[in-house]
Amino acid sequence: MRLVRTVDLLERARKGDHAAVGRLITLVENDLCGQPTGQAREIAIAVARFPQQAMVLGITGPPGVGKSTTTSALVAALRAQGDRIGVLAVDPSSPFSGGAVLGDRIRMGEHSADDGVFIRSMATRGQLGGLAAAVPMAVRLLDTAGCDWIIVETVGVGQSEIDVMALADTTLVILAPGMGDGIQAAKAGILEIADLLVVNKADRQGADQVVRDLRYRQNLSPRGAWRLPIVKTVASRGDGLTELLEEIRGHRNWLDASGEGVRRRIEHAKACIVEISVVHSRQRFGSLHSDAVTALAHEVVAGRLDPFTAADRLALQR
Amino acid sequence: MRLVRTVDLLERARKGDHAAVGRLITLVENDLCGQPTGQAREIAIAVARFPQQAMVLGITGPPGVGKSTTTSALVAALRAQGDRIGVLAVDPSSPFSGGAVLGDRIRMGEHSADDGVFIRSMATRGQLGGLAAAVPMAVRLLDTAGCDWIIVETVGVGQSEIDVMALADTTLVILAPGMGDGIQAAKAGILEIADLLVVNKADRQGADQVVRDLRYRQNLSPRGAWRLPIVKTVASRGDGLTELLEEIRGHRNWLDASGEGVRRRIEHAKACIVEISVVHSRQRFGSLHSDAVTALAHEVVAGRLDPFTAADRLALQR
Repeated sequence: MRLVRTVDLLERARKGDHAAVGRLITLVENDLCGQPTGQAREIAIAVARFPQQAMVLGITGPPGVGKSTTTSALVAALRAQGDRIGVLAVDPSSPFSGGAVLGDRIRMGEHSADDGVFIRSMATRGQLGGLAAAVPMAVRLLDTAGCDWIIVETVGVGQSEIDVMALADTTLVILAPGMGDGIQAAKAGILEIADLLVVNKADRQGADQVVRDLRYRQNLSPRGAWRLPIVKTVASRGDGLTELLEEIRGHRNWLDASGEGVRRRIEHAKACIVEISVVHSRQRFGSLHSDAVTALAHEVVAGRLDPFTAADRLALQR
Repeated sequence: MRLVRTVDLLERARKGDHAAVGRLITLVENDLCGQPTGQAREIAIAVARFPQQAMVLGITGPPGVGKSTTTSALVAALRAQGDRIGVLAVDPSSPFSGGAVLGDRIRMGEHSADDGVFIRSMATRGQLGGLAAAVPMAVRLLDTAGCDWIIVETVGVGQSEIDVMALADTTLVILAPGMGDGIQAAKAGILEIADLLVVNKADRQGADQVVRDLRYRQNLSPRGAWRLPIVKTVASRGDGLTELLEEIRGHRNWLDASGEGVRRRIEHAKACIVEISVVHSRQRFGSLHSDAVTALAHEVVAGRLDPFTAADRLALQR
């Protein structure tokens, strides 16, 4: 019964049915981030035979730099060429940020009536970790539904955002002038995952200074590798979008020509397999052996056992 | 050689040596959140025989409500009684928030020269998940070093914060008037983990409305269970601190009298064992079988295998 429904939803999703895609993503989220149902596996097995066609763009950066505005502008530019686009707005840091994400979605409102654009928010649901496995599956579903581009946008600049970006073919890191510490913070780690650096709100004072700061990192790129372009945009009025799209295409060509594209897809698949393994471990350790864990916890609280030895014993009981 | 150093550090930590405690926490963080060294296990085995003496206070709430100010005021009040206090400022959402946490620490500056107060920031280091195992170990180390109270303060209101709070005997959720969506967001889930509700900045307009909103939740408490007090504070000038401390002591007595205290410690130990198991799984799946994962990833990218079946095969290879 359940299998039939999943298969039926997939058939509808393959025809581009938005509601079916949304329902499938919810089933995946519920299974991997909430109570296990086994449906994510069913869906994964069913979509595995369709090779990934879509390009995946990751968009990240500190709060307030204009990630959603840039996403919206990119969607408009890609739609103008007739491409179909999926947008996943991922908030890895909180299950409670529906408001913030919703705000972003409202700004994307201009595309919400467009049948060629699928927009979806994803956030953790109770259990951390599952999201890192659920997002790649949502990407696969959007791909199966015929999207040419899938934009994965994250709300912050933390480690979770970096983990989420372990599925993008091309990662855009967006900065803006006047963000102060935000940019300093971003520099600490998130620039390392950038394929394209975007300085948005480039009409504001300080934009050139941000560009100069970024040149330093650009110059660190090893010879022969990707040259890490810096693109200035004013996404709210579409300035710089043509250049940005050109650089995205340039990166795509480089991915193909250098073999890096295939290498990345394999790295993404590795990350996905490991995340699924971790989700399984957590489910197994946390629920299946609940009585065993309780007995071990009593020993730990009594000072007769350390939690590492307890974990070893738990592993032996599987 | 390594074992000797850990044991030596622990001996110094037992005498209240701050530098030794700090070094031990770093060793635990590096092991569980970075490259595995096995030192967290050594340390856990060595501290297991000392039963936990300290009370653990969790402090959380949306950004801007005055969590650090409240922590600082609590530290001052507890120090006035001669108690020794450990403070762990945990940022589960980001490895890059050194700035924000540092800002909080500067506000705690009044206590930084006090030998009876140990202050430490903890953040993710590259790998998500390890933190949920590292924080309980840091608590155990502070306890071993003679702290009477350990305050664990988190920066946000996300699932990670809730997970981190799975080690507190008493959890304070702090709100403030004028936070708008922040409070709405917080209501969605974080109130459920509160033992004490604190309305800080109670001299500001809207404080009474916040209290009224919270009464609703207070009235949901089951009969016979903890009554979930609401305390109004102006932490910046110490207002309400006496009442807050009284309620904290009241909760402590209730934990003892009801048996809930022991039950919670067992739940915390369970969570810790599961988190260590998950860290081990991630380390094992991600590194030990690196070649195996790569081979499976090739199959997934080629469309010959789904990632769930790949994860099953990986599990069989352990």
